[in-house]
Amino acid sequence: MLQVQWIVGFVDGEGCFHIAINRNEGMSLGFQVLPEFTVVQHKRDVQILHKLKAYFGCGVVRTNHGDRMAYRVRGHDQLRDIILPFFLKHPLKTKKNIDFLKFRDVVLMMDKGVHLTGDGLEKIRGIAGQMNRQTVR
Amino acid sequence: MLQVQWIVGFVDGEGCFHIAINRNEGMSLGFQVLPEFTVVQHKRDVQILHKLKAYFGCGVVRTNHGDRMAYRVRGHDQLRDIILPFFLKHPLKTKKNIDFLKFRDVVLMMDKGVHLTGDGLEKIRGIAGQMNRQTVR
Repeated sequence: MLQVQWIVGFVDGEGCFHIAINRNEGMSLGFQVLPEFTVVQHKRDVQILHKLKAYFGCGVVRTNHGDRMAYRVRGHDQLRDIILPFFLKHPLKTKKNIDFLKFRDVVLMMDKGVHLTGDGLEKIRGIAGQMNRQTVR
Repeated sequence: MLQVQWIVGFVDGEGCFHIAINRNEGMSLGFQVLPEFTVVQHKRDVQILHKLKAYFGCGVVRTNHGDRMAYRVRGHDQLRDIILPFFLKHPLKTKKNIDFLKFRDVVLMMDKGVHLTGDGLEKIRGIAGQMNRQTVR
């Protein structure tokens, strides 16, 4: 089993907290908000992705691009009940923690249905646009 | 202070064990063997590199390329006495550990002066050529 601080360090390096906003005509506003936690590795280290999946007890391991594989958690309840509490209790030490906190805000807003209103969707779009930019904020 | 397993996880993601073999007319064989442990980050996370430097008590933090900074240890004694024992005691969990073990072999060979003989230099060149290739070996 992986150790907690190893996971924090590895995710500080390789993890990504991302909010995709995709056009989806099936949604009343025409857009779907898709929060996603991913860790991407070369396929030679796919065993580590399976260990992350086993540790968190959720998510999937899939091919990403070419030789790269990804561990991915998209389920709303799994993000809210497993991933968010873990990284709230064991904070990332890099500036990626800022992305995590914005990610958390969006998932908790979605829990209240905020993304289903036009104003809420715009607010989420604004937060998503500030994430994963690798600049000092 | 950083925690041991956080460092292991972060280096599993972001660290690099590299053996450079550079032409150097000052050396009797015309080549210099330069083992180097580096961790590269966007400058927004330079504080983490300084924490690594403080933890290990050796190495330097320098600009790498553009917006990227590197924590770097090149000193032979520091690699042999600090970096190698740390990652031997606390093994990396990804296939990067294979690179580390080859890196360790080269540093220990250099400790015995193996790199100063033609045969030894060729042997080191062979090991260095197998490192950091991101393929299953």
